[in-house]
Amino acid sequence: MPELRKDPIIGRWVIISTERGKRPTDFSSVPPARSTGFCPFCAGNESKTPPEVFAFREPGTKPNEPGWRVRVVPNKFPALQIEGDLNRQGEGIYDKMNGIGAHEVIIETPEHDKKLSDLGEEHITEVILAWQQRILDLKKDERFKYIVVFKNHGEAAGASLEHTHTQLVAMPIIPKRVVEEIEGGRRYYDFKERCVYCDIVTQEIADDVRVVTANETFLAIEPFAARFPFETWILPKKHKSAFEESQKQEIIHLARILKEILMKLDAALNNPPYNFILHTLPLRGDNRSWYHWHIEIMPKLTKVAGFEWGSGFYINPTAPEEATKYLREISIALKK
Amino acid sequence: MPELRKDPIIGRWVIISTERGKRPTDFSSVPPARSTGFCPFCAGNESKTPPEVFAFREPGTKPNEPGWRVRVVPNKFPALQIEGDLNRQGEGIYDKMNGIGAHEVIIETPEHDKKLSDLGEEHITEVILAWQQRILDLKKDERFKYIVVFKNHGEAAGASLEHTHTQLVAMPIIPKRVVEEIEGGRRYYDFKERCVYCDIVTQEIADDVRVVTANETFLAIEPFAARFPFETWILPKKHKSAFEESQKQEIIHLARILKEILMKLDAALNNPPYNFILHTLPLRGDNRSWYHWHIEIMPKLTKVAGFEWGSGFYINPTAPEEATKYLREISIALKK
Repeated sequence: MPELRKDPIIGRWVIISTERGKRPTDFSSVPPARSTGFCPFCAGNESKTPPEVFAFREPGTKPNEPGWRVRVVPNKFPALQIEGDLNRQGEGIYDKMNGIGAHEVIIETPEHDKKLSDLGEEHITEVILAWQQRILDLKKDERFKYIVVFKNHGEAAGASLEHTHTQLVAMPIIPKRVVEEIEGGRRYYDFKERCVYCDIVTQEIADDVRVVTANETFLAIEPFAARFPFETWILPKKHKSAFEESQKQEIIHLARILKEILMKLDAALNNPPYNFILHTLPLRGDNRSWYHWHIEIMPKLTKVAGFEWGSGFYINPTAPEEATKYLREISIALKK
Repeated sequence: MPELRKDPIIGRWVIISTERGKRPTDFSSVPPARSTGFCPFCAGNESKTPPEVFAFREPGTKPNEPGWRVRVVPNKFPALQIEGDLNRQGEGIYDKMNGIGAHEVIIETPEHDKKLSDLGEEHITEVILAWQQRILDLKKDERFKYIVVFKNHGEAAGASLEHTHTQLVAMPIIPKRVVEEIEGGRRYYDFKERCVYCDIVTQEIADDVRVVTANETFLAIEPFAARFPFETWILPKKHKSAFEESQKQEIIHLARILKEILMKLDAALNNPPYNFILHTLPLRGDNRSWYHWHIEIMPKLTKVAGFEWGSGFYINPTAPEEATKYLREISIALKK
């Protein structure tokens, strides 16, 4: 059983996988063979994953057989375990609980050699609709407080399988960064009676030096205090707290801007490894007035990644205004 | 002039180097040629760095000439600039100030092909004494609130020059992680009237499952809620808040345990890239009762580094108790 453990000083929860623990030799620096051999995410290999929990399929095709366009399955090696009780307990001064949660994989396409940014807008819309469907379903489980949706693209960004996919983790805790966003948003709201993210949207549109692109519903910016070169945020222009409450038309617009940003980053940085994380409202509690959902995209440019990761102290060698200029200059011909 | 910019939501300050901004092509994935060619940190090349601000030298040798064992110079490409006023100002809803600070390099040895862990204990003692001397000197500058001492070892950990060195950045802000440690430490103290780090030391010695090694003055542990595999902390066993107030004998003990831990990590993980960061009391203000200085060492095992870095949500595939077993089994013959 994995464990959730709380740092006794700053209160951050960490998932410790105590069962399939990595040994020192598992961290050898020789990369595994890629692009060759068997892929459990490819069409025809459906029986090699746990049974699917959701899919967009061609009419007349059956679950766990080919014919799907987007397929969601439980992670075969989950970081958290779905069955059991939380069993919160102390261990001297420390706090821990059972690692209860759901860990699912959204396989974005049956084709092995496609990237997310290669898919058409309608296809990316289905990927995002699959995130939404899974959140709406898992939200019913009262043990869960938060669902994080994230993508690791490229081995340097932590992707362990090459076939393009997003991951989803439902958990009984709220990640520290989201807690900080809620607390910071509430402090700002207490002072100004406005949402800080809404104020960012307003100022960025007026300043027009960090806006990469926009459409009817969304704005994509390089944030003022970006931690990383080419860090990019996508925000709804109007105040929206919970991603899973999005309308279909909004998700179509999200697919369009996400594809555009990923294509621009690919072109500017030569298909960089990247991570993105969906930041959305916790499943329980209120906080609606001051929380504004968004996606944070972080290209992983290893030459600059130093001790900053994890220290809370960042040196960014590329001003966001400069990154914006480069990304704006790249014109992307979007097609369905 | 570099800028310090504050994230308007969570309040984290970031250094933005606006002058020598990296362009997209600077992030090409081709690593630069290493080990060959000119090194400004080698003995004989003293004129290729800014003039030294401190050194341990053989008797009779002159500054900026060979004969040094440890040499401190300003960083030729500083992240912060020493001259000027802070000029705190707003930009709409955003906050910024001039990037005033000191950025120095502690060259740990004149020999190019040595690692820090290869140096003798007496030599490492001088490296640490050099950190201390520079902190005591820079502390006099009233503009600075914090000095962070850190090391990037290996290209994957962000080291841009191969020749072994530590870096020091004095700045007019306190890094967010340190602020969190102070706030967390104060909360714990308010409740318990004890230092949380002292309680960790007491419990770890009693439990004896996460203690890697110890000596008269220091304890080295794998922390209970470790974010990364083989993350290792070195703490004074007795309550000490400010590293720079250490006695010579304590620094001798620190050199010994640091060398021992680095050698164990080298042996267990095959000379991994790593970062370490000295966490010490801010230069101004009190907080002595609940702050306890320590060093956090984070091996950078790229196969597991995913989106966790920078998201506040960590999945650690190696339980700290397992890592402890591996590290304990490695016996290191320490020699002067």
